[in-house]
Amino acid sequence: MAPSTPTLIFPIDVKKPPHEQKIPLHNRWHPEIPPVAQVKTGEVFRVEMVDWTGGAIADNGSASDVKTLEISTVHYLSGPIAVVDGDGIPAKPGDLLAVEILNLGPLPGEEWGFTAIFDRDNGGGFLTDHFPNATKAIWYFEGIYAHSPHIPGVRFPGLTHPGIIGTAPSKELLTIWNDRERDLVETGLQSLKLCQVLHTRPLANLPTTEGCFLGKIREGTPEWERIAREAARTIPGRENGGNCDIKNLSRGSKVYLPVFVEGANLSTGDMHFSQGDGEVAFCGAIEMSGFLELKCDIIRDGMKNYLTPMGPTRLHVNPIFEIGPVEPRFSEWLVFEGISVDESGRQHFLDASVAYKRAVLNAIDYISRFGYSKEQV
Amino acid sequence: MAPSTPTLIFPIDVKKPPHEQKIPLHNRWHPEIPPVAQVKTGEVFRVEMVDWTGGAIADNGSASDVKTLEISTVHYLSGPIAVVDGDGIPAKPGDLLAVEILNLGPLPGEEWGFTAIFDRDNGGGFLTDHFPNATKAIWYFEGIYAHSPHIPGVRFPGLTHPGIIGTAPSKELLTIWNDRERDLVETGLQSLKLCQVLHTRPLANLPTTEGCFLGKIREGTPEWERIAREAARTIPGRENGGNCDIKNLSRGSKVYLPVFVEGANLSTGDMHFSQGDGEVAFCGAIEMSGFLELKCDIIRDGMKNYLTPMGPTRLHVNPIFEIGPVEPRFSEWLVFEGISVDESGRQHFLDASVAYKRAVLNAIDYISRFGYSKEQV
Amino acid sequence: MAPSTPTLIFPIDVKKPPHEQKIPLHNRWHPEIPPVAQVKTGEVFRVEMVDWTGGAIADNGSASDVKTLEISTVHYLSGPIAVVDGDGIPAKPGDLLAVEILNLGPLPGEEWGFTAIFDRDNGGGFLTDHFPNATKAIWYFEGIYAHSPHIPGVRFPGLTHPGIIGTAPSKELLTIWNDRERDLVETGLQSLKLCQVLHTRPLANLPTTEGCFLGKIREGTPEWERIAREAARTIPGRENGGNCDIKNLSRGSKVYLPVFVEGANLSTGDMHFSQGDGEVAFCGAIEMSGFLELKCDIIRDGMKNYLTPMGPTRLHVNPIFEIGPVEPRFSEWLVFEGISVDESGRQHFLDASVAYKRAVLNAIDYISRFGYSKEQV
Amino acid sequence: MAPSTPTLIFPIDVKKPPHEQKIPLHNRWHPEIPPVAQVKTGEVFRVEMVDWTGGAIADNGSASDVKTLEISTVHYLSGPIAVVDGDGIPAKPGDLLAVEILNLGPLPGEEWGFTAIFDRDNGGGFLTDHFPNATKAIWYFEGIYAHSPHIPGVRFPGLTHPGIIGTAPSKELLTIWNDRERDLVETGLQSLKLCQVLHTRPLANLPTTEGCFLGKIREGTPEWERIAREAARTIPGRENGGNCDIKNLSRGSKVYLPVFVEGANLSTGDMHFSQGDGEVAFCGAIEMSGFLELKCDIIRDGMKNYLTPMGPTRLHVNPIFEIGPVEPRFSEWLVFEGISVDESGRQHFLDASVAYKRAVLNAIDYISRFGYSKEQV
Repeated sequence: MAPSTPTLIFPIDVKKPPHEQKIPLHNRWHPEIPPVAQVKTGEVFRVEMVDWTGGAIADNGSASDVKTLEISTVHYLSGPIAVVDGDGIPAKPGDLLAVEILNLGPLPGEEWGFTAIFDRDNGGGFLTDHFPNATKAIWYFEGIYAHSPHIPGVRFPGLTHPGIIGTAPSKELLTIWNDRERDLVETGLQSLKLCQVLHTRPLANLPTTEGCFLGKIREGTPEWERIAREAARTIPGRENGGNCDIKNLSRGSKVYLPVFVEGANLSTGDMHFSQGDGEVAFCGAIEMSGFLELKCDIIRDGMKNYLTPMGPTRLHVNPIFEIGPVEPRFSEWLVFEGISVDESGRQHFLDASVAYKRAVLNAIDYISRFGYSKEQV
Repeated sequence: MAPSTPTLIFPIDVKKPPHEQKIPLHNRWHPEIPPVAQVKTGEVFRVEMVDWTGGAIADNGSASDVKTLEISTVHYLSGPIAVVDGDGIPAKPGDLLAVEILNLGPLPGEEWGFTAIFDRDNGGGFLTDHFPNATKAIWYFEGIYAHSPHIPGVRFPGLTHPGIIGTAPSKELLTIWNDRERDLVETGLQSLKLCQVLHTRPLANLPTTEGCFLGKIREGTPEWERIAREAARTIPGRENGGNCDIKNLSRGSKVYLPVFVEGANLSTGDMHFSQGDGEVAFCGAIEMSGFLELKCDIIRDGMKNYLTPMGPTRLHVNPIFEIGPVEPRFSEWLVFEGISVDESGRQHFLDASVAYKRAVLNAIDYISRFGYSKEQV
Repeated sequence: MAPSTPTLIFPIDVKKPPHEQKIPLHNRWHPEIPPVAQVKTGEVFRVEMVDWTGGAIADNGSASDVKTLEISTVHYLSGPIAVVDGDGIPAKPGDLLAVEILNLGPLPGEEWGFTAIFDRDNGGGFLTDHFPNATKAIWYFEGIYAHSPHIPGVRFPGLTHPGIIGTAPSKELLTIWNDRERDLVETGLQSLKLCQVLHTRPLANLPTTEGCFLGKIREGTPEWERIAREAARTIPGRENGGNCDIKNLSRGSKVYLPVFVEGANLSTGDMHFSQGDGEVAFCGAIEMSGFLELKCDIIRDGMKNYLTPMGPTRLHVNPIFEIGPVEPRFSEWLVFEGISVDESGRQHFLDASVAYKRAVLNAIDYISRFGYSKEQV
Repeated sequence: MAPSTPTLIFPIDVKKPPHEQKIPLHNRWHPEIPPVAQVKTGEVFRVEMVDWTGGAIADNGSASDVKTLEISTVHYLSGPIAVVDGDGIPAKPGDLLAVEILNLGPLPGEEWGFTAIFDRDNGGGFLTDHFPNATKAIWYFEGIYAHSPHIPGVRFPGLTHPGIIGTAPSKELLTIWNDRERDLVETGLQSLKLCQVLHTRPLANLPTTEGCFLGKIREGTPEWERIAREAARTIPGRENGGNCDIKNLSRGSKVYLPVFVEGANLSTGDMHFSQGDGEVAFCGAIEMSGFLELKCDIIRDGMKNYLTPMGPTRLHVNPIFEIGPVEPRFSEWLVFEGISVDESGRQHFLDASVAYKRAVLNAIDYISRFGYSKEQV
């Protein structure tokens, strides 16, 4: 038995743009994106990743790159990684893939990240009606601490985690996703008046060839065109995990992901140095490139045994996240309250989004009394 | 200087029904409900309280009392308590009332509580379409631990807190509440399609003379009739605090409540032995009678200095909660994910309530695999 | 099944001196001190206790009572309590007595305590050569917090626990104690040069009739005289538990005590509002009267199964303490280092007591830089 | 401003023995060992280190290397590192050197460590009279977790820290050390009978040319001979910090070290993956090679302002350790008690070492009931 030195299976060179990486990236979910690597259960492997924008945001004080960011290209993912057991038999649909996060952090020489408020006209965010203009703050990491030249006097310990981790969908699941998201786009504005209190963000981001990266599938081929038109975008979390943004998913945590295709085809990306309980500023986590050291296990037939579908098909499931034993200790904190009454004074029925928005606005206002602008908060 | 022995200013005899208590209870918010006691800042005082139903739920295994509970009578509150400073000058509108929770617990001889699922036809709850029938579980307390004869094998440490703590609204604020809640009732069903995924619960509970308790105001007088028709119900949290259900609001915590009437007129009730992050089963906290030991301070002009209105008037504020340093330690936990897709497979736009519901259903399902019925979970 | 309302089996009236309490106190360990109460396993019972000095220290600013405290009378204990199982069969020698601490706190009206430095000529303390004079600080409790008029600006959350909890020794065990302590007194000074760096404190406190309380045994009888000459003093912790001073032994903790006599004969006392990792000032915990709510279980033959003797007889064992899940959270702290070199610069061989003393002196010195006298620290 | 990428100032190649490292190691404290690198305050730098034995213990199941380990060569240190401020002015005697631990961990490819019990005839350990024979357990690291093929079924999260971190002594301080340790060796056995209950370990390890490494000073030169005869061994912690073994000194912690020579001359080594409250098995921590990422600050005149000498000279001080906010959460734990009575039944006066030994023996015994040998525990 030898020490578990991680094998680097997905290297990144952050000096190069996404399309020049040695192993091709992808930014869509599709069953036909071929795996770029294979790991055995129990093997410790290292996956490096670009930040979610693929390096489009620079380490400087100007938010012009945030304002013009091409949203169709995000989030860049590392993978897919096929997982096989000790006998070489791949994970099968119906299994659970247990992924343990052994270690994670920034790439050497890239110990920085950013938070940003997105422009109302380029994606916006949860509070876009209050903060319509693009802003950016750069954060520098020193071990567990982050500090920012744009928010003087603040230094805090982070809880680093990957914002996105998920398995590839099957063809059947992908169709379910595309159908329900298309339905929402087509009928949403009429039926869901809730949108009034949120804003200009699109109801859903449907598949598009624009800005599409499909890993090893060569761009321009008919296959690429077909898959690009089908492949799901990365923005919402879905049955395969995906964009979960769980702030405690750090060292020592374990994710139990449903397997929908042979090999599971694990992808990950969107590393966050730290994040609150929600991503308020659209890009409210501290975004970064980084690395993950992982170990997988396959629980045969685990979906049936641990996950019960909540929906019309057996695919309507959600992963389970087992949180690790390490997080920064804080001895006291403040709770801000929000109620389901919007800024115009109108009450909404049990609307958790409105209440959350109000609570966040209250917190921003309170902290701004200590000498920070509301954007800094 | 002498030890701070709490003065009992609001005694309860749980053997008697609400209307026979020595100091009359109230179950509405109104500026004209007269204070029943006065405390000085810095004074340590003890307030006893009935459970939110005023003893309507019995310590037995039958849920018939849950099924027929008269909802118009809840929540019974202890107070109002007028607060004056060391010179006898009362808290004034515009001040903040800082209320510190020094100690709290069950009443001697009443070391028990209950959780319940409400009947779909009597209030229902967050998951009423999944669990339409009334059920009840009794919990017995042994120090920090609770156990239930109805859920064998479970014993856990609680984090006791008052579900309701708030100041009296001014006439102006009360009018704002009644107007916006009436507006929601009248126009809600048409405009807010979100309700489809929730259920049969009324959109808002408007003032009603039915089941109304107004403290020292004699029932049947014209004054009582008028106030009963105006006085706000206790169910949602509002600008005055009220039904906040913050699970960490335990020993050592401090609430900063806006003051709207002279004396602040603090009321509290709805003690919970323990509660999760939300009250899933309508009555998902462990409900109990109990006592609070409190100490108040007045921050003169504190509303202007610490709270910024989020809405059309200077009264559209929310209290701030400072959480104390004690809670049970848990070394690991599971996170269940929910997405904004309902049980029919339909997607909703960024709907935190739907996502939360899905996450809760996933958690219930998972735990039920260990031998518990879903109602027990 | 009914709620577990604690039965008060040992009431205290703090207005009365120790010898006038309704149930007689004891301040010695002896197998023949008869039980004053009997409890069943599973029963929740309440034990009240005086502070360790039996009320000799007054709530005022003068340390004259500390200076003249009669050390022979401490610690006053509540008990002994005989424990029987559901069938009425008592705990037997060789069993383990599991005692769970459900709740604890100050007696109503007595929400105060004291810390003291003992006079070099009256017991002294760990740092008596640095702080030879008697001092006293009174602490007032407000829920989980304590503050002192003698140490302005300090308010901190405590972790309340009984300093003494133990079972009665058998005759055989008592003889072992008396023999080894007499041996230490007789030969200690010659052989253990370590004493030089500690000080004037007696090497051991041997049995004495002076200040002796033996519960129900009538003072002045021949039986009383005999037992008083044999009964062990309460100062060191021994095989039966006793004076353990474990700061985390608070709500939700459980002690597994060896049983040496029929019924176990549990005694407890010496409540501390809070204590550091050691009792530096001799009386470095905040001493108080108070109450415990307890529940016992008997593990038949538990000594054989869980405790292995470390010494010449099967009685040379120690209890096990299971710490509960609640303590105040602190996010950061300082560690002070001490080395085994005394204040004269002389090095001692791996002497943990000297190193601890040095670390404590360093901590005192550091904190005194913030405006406190060293005695206040 | 650029991200704080650590500069590697002290590289290690674990494939090579100590004397072949590119930058020479040292295993003694002496003012004349010249610095091998210089860092500026605020600069983030990386120091790699061999394990304390310099690779003498192999990743295999045989304890023969433990049995024959040459104790005179330990602990190998990386450094000394001179620290200057932003203007290039070095740290001066009387300053404090604040060293922040930003990150730390194993060297890539070397994710393993060992615990060992030392042979009674080769150093022994705290329990050498109970466990006289050399044993070894290898531990493999997977992120925050460690597991061992020699202790099946155990996997736990560690709290990694450097066992040794300190500044160089001045000539004057070194003389104090050597004088007091020589005095202990010469007079210790006669005067300190405490040693009876400990064992065969030498009272102090005096300077010796045997196994001596002095960094850049060429072996065999007269200078080397002189310094080797004066230079202090690394085993006890002293005024300069040194072998402190503080288990929480992990990410986010800060050490305030007194400065005795120009440049401070910081050295560090003896990385531990994890350790309990004390090093029971002599080598009871999980020993490993590894890296530290550090940042220094100079507090001018800090010794005078923050440290008070406890001893005959102004050099008798101790560093202060500020513990970071991250450690594994454990929800419950057991406390084992020890009393100052040795295994023969003899009582010692307030002997914390004996009591600690007894508590450790009790803990070992208890855990061994779950199927482990006492050596495994």
